[in-house]
Amino acid sequence: MTNDTVSVKPVQHPSATISPAALRWPRGFRTSVGAAAIKKAGRDDLALLSMPMGATAAAIFTRNLFAAAPIEVSRRHLKDSRGHASALILNSGCANAATGPRGLSNAQEMVDAVSLALGCAGESVLVNSTGVIGVQLPMDRIAPEIAHMAARLLSGAVDASHQDSLEPFARAIMTTDTKPKMSARTIDCGGGRHVHVAGVAKGAGMIRPDMATMISVLATDAEVDPRTLDRILRHAADASYHRISVDGDTSTNDSVFAFASGTAGACDETVLAQAFREVACDLAKMIVCDGEGFERSLSVRVTGAASRADALRVAETVASSLLVRTAITGGDPNWGRIVAAAGRAGVAFRPSDLELRVGGILIFRDGEPCPADRDLVRAAFNGSHVDIVISLGASEGAEAEANSDTFLSCGLTTEYVRLNADYTT
Amino acid sequence: MTNDTVSVKPVQHPSATISPAALRWPRGFRTSVGAAAIKKAGRDDLALLSMPMGATAAAIFTRNLFAAAPIEVSRRHLKDSRGHASALILNSGCANAATGPRGLSNAQEMVDAVSLALGCAGESVLVNSTGVIGVQLPMDRIAPEIAHMAARLLSGAVDASHQDSLEPFARAIMTTDTKPKMSARTIDCGGGRHVHVAGVAKGAGMIRPDMATMISVLATDAEVDPRTLDRILRHAADASYHRISVDGDTSTNDSVFAFASGTAGACDETVLAQAFREVACDLAKMIVCDGEGFERSLSVRVTGAASRADALRVAETVASSLLVRTAITGGDPNWGRIVAAAGRAGVAFRPSDLELRVGGILIFRDGEPCPADRDLVRAAFNGSHVDIVISLGASEGAEAEANSDTFLSCGLTTEYVRLNADYTT
Repeated sequence: MTNDTVSVKPVQHPSATISPAALRWPRGFRTSVGAAAIKKAGRDDLALLSMPMGATAAAIFTRNLFAAAPIEVSRRHLKDSRGHASALILNSGCANAATGPRGLSNAQEMVDAVSLALGCAGESVLVNSTGVIGVQLPMDRIAPEIAHMAARLLSGAVDASHQDSLEPFARAIMTTDTKPKMSARTIDCGGGRHVHVAGVAKGAGMIRPDMATMISVLATDAEVDPRTLDRILRHAADASYHRISVDGDTSTNDSVFAFASGTAGACDETVLAQAFREVACDLAKMIVCDGEGFERSLSVRVTGAASRADALRVAETVASSLLVRTAITGGDPNWGRIVAAAGRAGVAFRPSDLELRVGGILIFRDGEPCPADRDLVRAAFNGSHVDIVISLGASEGAEAEANSDTFLSCGLTTEYVRLNADYTT
Repeated sequence: MTNDTVSVKPVQHPSATISPAALRWPRGFRTSVGAAAIKKAGRDDLALLSMPMGATAAAIFTRNLFAAAPIEVSRRHLKDSRGHASALILNSGCANAATGPRGLSNAQEMVDAVSLALGCAGESVLVNSTGVIGVQLPMDRIAPEIAHMAARLLSGAVDASHQDSLEPFARAIMTTDTKPKMSARTIDCGGGRHVHVAGVAKGAGMIRPDMATMISVLATDAEVDPRTLDRILRHAADASYHRISVDGDTSTNDSVFAFASGTAGACDETVLAQAFREVACDLAKMIVCDGEGFERSLSVRVTGAASRADALRVAETVASSLLVRTAITGGDPNWGRIVAAAGRAGVAFRPSDLELRVGGILIFRDGEPCPADRDLVRAAFNGSHVDIVISLGASEGAEAEANSDTFLSCGLTTEYVRLNADYTT
C-alpha cells in the first residue's frame, strides 16, 4: 500500500529504536473479560482493563450530539481526575446510547461495580459501550459479571499468558468485526531499557473520520504526564483514525483511550509519539480491511492542492464516493467517477491541471484520458488494494508535497448492504 | 407520502386552475428520436427537440468542476442568445465528459449537425449527453443519424400522435432508468384558453442535490420572457431536484432545461410557477422511485430547527446516511441510526429536545425511546414508503413550521451495489 499517512514506516531515532513487538499489554496493566449475554449468550462481551498502580489517561470522544451515556460519564471522570485513571470497563452488544436518564445511571452503575470490586475511586474508572443504539443494558447480568471479572483479576486466577495477551480483550469488544485488531511496538531506549506500546481496536461499521463505532485502547508503560499523553494521542489519531472511512457515518460511541502506567520510566516524546502513531495506523488499516462486507481496500492520495485541507477534502470525497467505491468492488476501471468525485469536492482547481494515476498508471491528463494499456489498467483496479493518486496541479514542488493528504477506504459491497439491512432484527 | 416539499398539492388560483394533463409536448414543440448505437445497438439513444418558431430558454447546470463538454457549449449558447433557443439535442450512452478538446469539438459537431439540418443558428441549439465518463462519442454514427432525425421531423414522417407524445423522447434519454419519466399539467386560464406544461427526466444514478446525471426538460406553450422563465425554473428545481438523493454523487452532466414557445399566450407567473413546480416534483419523485436498485423510498421531514438551512442539513444528512438507508432496505426498525445521523449533521440542537416519529408513531422523546407497539413500529419501517419526521425543538409554533424542510431518498440495496460495481464493463 503506497499510503504514507495511514501506513507509517518505522523510523530510526538517534537515541532509540522502534520495532514490532509481541501482542501483549505493557507492564502495569491487567485485564479480565466476561460474558453477560448482552446481545448473544456464550461469548465474551465485557472487557476490563485495570491499572493497579494507576496511570495517566487521555481520550478522544465522538462529536456526535447523541454521545452515548458512558461517554458522558468518561468525559466527566477524565476531567475530574485531571487525566488519571485506574480502570476501563467496556462492553459490546449494546451502545447505551439514546437511552436517557436510565442509560446514564446504568453507565454509572458499571463504573460503581468496577470501583467497588477493584477498590479504586469511582472517578478513576472510565467506561464505554458499543452495539445497538436505543436499547437499555441488561444490568442484572452485567453488574454481577463485573464482580466476577474483577475477582478473577485480583485473585490471579487468570493465568499469566492469557492475562498479558491483547487478544481476549480485543475479542470481547468485537461487534460485527470478523477479527480481533491488535498491534504493538517496542522502543529500545538503550542501556537495556525497553518501553512497550500496545493497542486494540474494534471497528466494522459506522466508520468515518472523527471516528465512529470505533473503540480503540492504546497503552504504554512509559512515564508520560497527562498533557503530553493527550498530545501524543491526538497526533496519532490524526494520522490514522481520522483518515479512514467505511460508510461515512459517525457513531454515538466513538472513542480512543490512551493510558500510560509509567512502570518503564521516561521515554523521548518524539519516539513515543512515533510508536503510538505506528500502532494507531496499524489498527486503522485493520479496521478498514475488516469493514463490513470488505473485499478490497482503496487509498486516495491527493497532492499539489492549494492547501493541505483542500487535499484532505478531495481525498475524502473520492474515497467516500459510493460510485467510486462500487466501481472498486467491481474491479471496474470506470475512472471517470474518480475525476467526477474530485470535481464536486468543493475545492478550487483547474480540471485541465488534474492528473490521475491508478496503480501507478497515468490515466487522465490535460483534461482527457491518456492512452494506457487496457489490461494494465484493468489489473490496477483488480488487486486486493487499489492505489489512487491525484495531482491537482494547484501547487508545485515542495509545496505540492506539503499540500497533500491520503485517505483510506474500501469497496462498497452487496455484503455490506446485506449486513446493515438486518442488524437489529 | 407526507412530503410537502417534493409532493406539491394542486392549488386553486383565483384566475386559473391547474390540473393533470395528457403526456404530450405543448404546442410549438416537435421531437424526433434516433438510434446511433452509442452504447448498445438497436435502442433509441438520440433525442431532438425542435422549437420551429423559437422559444425562450433557461437552464440549470451541474456545479461539478468536470462539467461535460456539451454543458460548456450549452452554457455559452444560452448566454450568447440571451435566453433563446430553437433546438435541443440529447444523447444517452456516453457523457462526453472528461474528454478534452476532442470532446468539445464533438459537442460542437452535434450542434452543427442540428443547425445545418434544421436551418437554425448554431447558437440557438443546446446540447447535452449522459452515460459513461471519459469515452469519446462515435461521431461517425451520430452526425448522420441527427440528419435523418431532422429530416423525419421536417418531412412530417413522424405520425402526429407519436410526434406529440412525451414518451419516445423520455425513452431515448434513459440510461439505467427502468421507466421513462414524464409529467404534465394544464392550466385553464379562463375564456377557453389553456396553457400546457410538460416535462421529461432521466435519473437512476449519481443523484443528489444540486443535481446529478439527471437530465430534465420542461416545456410550456406559455409566453414567458427569459428572466421570468429562469426564475420559475430555479423555484421549481429548488422544491424538487434539489431535495432528492440517490447516492450522494453529483455528475458532470446534470442539467434541467426549460423552454417556453409562447404559442398559447401569456399566463400569470404564480400559476405557471406552480405548474412547473408540480411537474418538477412529479419527475423528482419518479427519479427517486426509479433509483438504481430501488425497493423502498424514504422522506425525512425536519421541523423546529433554528433555521430552514439547519432543517435541510439534518434532513439531507439523515436521508443520505448509508446506515439509515440500509436499515430502510431491511425494513429494520433500527431508529437509533436516525438519531445518530441527526446528531452528526453539524447542526446545533439539544438531543433531549429531539422528537422522532416514523409513520406517525412517536419513537423517541426526552432523550430516550418511547414505549411504542413493536408491531406497529415494524410495520412503519416496512411499507413501500418510510415517513420520518424529526422535530428538533429549537424553535416553536409558526417559526418551527417555517424552519422546516423535507428530503427524499430511497433504501440502499444490494442491487444498487451490483448495478454500480459493473457499469462500464
